[in-house]
Amino acid sequence: MRVRNKPWASEFLQENRHIAIAQPSELKGKWKEFFGNSNPIHIEVGTGKGQFLSGMAKANPDINYLGIELFQSVMVIAVQKVIDAEVDNLKLLNVDAAVLTDIFEDGEVDRLYLNFSDPWPKKRHEKRRLTYKTFLGLYERLLVKGGEIHFKTDNQGLFEFSLRSFSEYGMLLTFVSLDLHQSDFEGNIMTEYEEKFSNKGQRIYRSEAKFQNEPSE
Amino acid sequence: MRVRNKPWASEFLQENRHIAIAQPSELKGKWKEFFGNSNPIHIEVGTGKGQFLSGMAKANPDINYLGIELFQSVMVIAVQKVIDAEVDNLKLLNVDAAVLTDIFEDGEVDRLYLNFSDPWPKKRHEKRRLTYKTFLGLYERLLVKGGEIHFKTDNQGLFEFSLRSFSEYGMLLTFVSLDLHQSDFEGNIMTEYEEKFSNKGQRIYRSEAKFQNEPSE
Repeated sequence: MRVRNKPWASEFLQENRHIAIAQPSELKGKWKEFFGNSNPIHIEVGTGKGQFLSGMAKANPDINYLGIELFQSVMVIAVQKVIDAEVDNLKLLNVDAAVLTDIFEDGEVDRLYLNFSDPWPKKRHEKRRLTYKTFLGLYERLLVKGGEIHFKTDNQGLFEFSLRSFSEYGMLLTFVSLDLHQSDFEGNIMTEYEEKFSNKGQRIYRSEAKFQNEPSE
Repeated sequence: MRVRNKPWASEFLQENRHIAIAQPSELKGKWKEFFGNSNPIHIEVGTGKGQFLSGMAKANPDINYLGIELFQSVMVIAVQKVIDAEVDNLKLLNVDAAVLTDIFEDGEVDRLYLNFSDPWPKKRHEKRRLTYKTFLGLYERLLVKGGEIHFKTDNQGLFEFSLRSFSEYGMLLTFVSLDLHQSDFEGNIMTEYEEKFSNKGQRIYRSEAKFQNEPSE
């Protein structure tokens, strides 16, 4: 499936505004109201083609999921997955991670997922990595006190960087697996990338890190 | 080289008391005086056959090294390495890690190395792992404020456990490599185990973790 040059993408998103939320900032502070229940809200930053979140939404009907994806051309595929999965506890937001605090009130999110984020391997691009301290600062604001980031990647350099970054930010590492698919971790739901890379015999790294203090203003 | 049943081991250590210190607890608080200079003191817990520390002692003449090794049968080999290396900034102590606080005054040690420690893979043995919190508590007392543990292992489970354990203890991870020999880390000195396992193509994991607070009494 091609992920570039989709002239129909805008139209497709327009037709599916019950899944691809048009003006998410208008729902800031009102996400529980929007979902019509008080279930926890888990978000994924960089949802891509949506296999992870649609799998999670099916497996956990008592959790509300929001997928954040910058690229419209990829998000249309995720929208189709949500349609196919027939779940109403998963919505998608076509925005940049940098504007997360325009979309969520402080403490409105219960957990945050990062899966196979762009590694930005060059040192001069490290500020763009989604586990860089400025992003951790955003996440800390959105998340409840003691909120967790669950992070998977096949990229060794990004994983090494991220463990240090979590630690330097004062987060607590509560889970570390250096070979997820050979571990006894249960209930793993694979992303598209994860399937592809683990089929090639590549290791998948996974960590959970927890914010420990009150968010600073 | 056999490492068991050395009836001559005791005698050999007796003959080399200038290297294998007989009553280290008598030197508690006086190690700088013993070495006759004010150079930093770095210790290795579980020195084994001594290749790492003798290499470090040669490479860094301005640092004093002390190797702690429980097994006399292994320590004799380390003693021979110190003799061969002709270094006077490395001494060996044939004691259990559990008695470290009898040997060092609080804050007397500048850095602590753990290399290829016994992984004790069974959950019910986790208290024996040298990165378990009770050991970290001992190390924190010996070390200067902000002192670091430098840790290498080929054992994935021990490395995962240790990263969590450092984090849970409130230590800061300042270095993480998930494949040391493929990284740009410079100045690595290999242990006997490390040579053997990396020659088999096995990954070597390495981390540096730093104590952040004043030792608690």
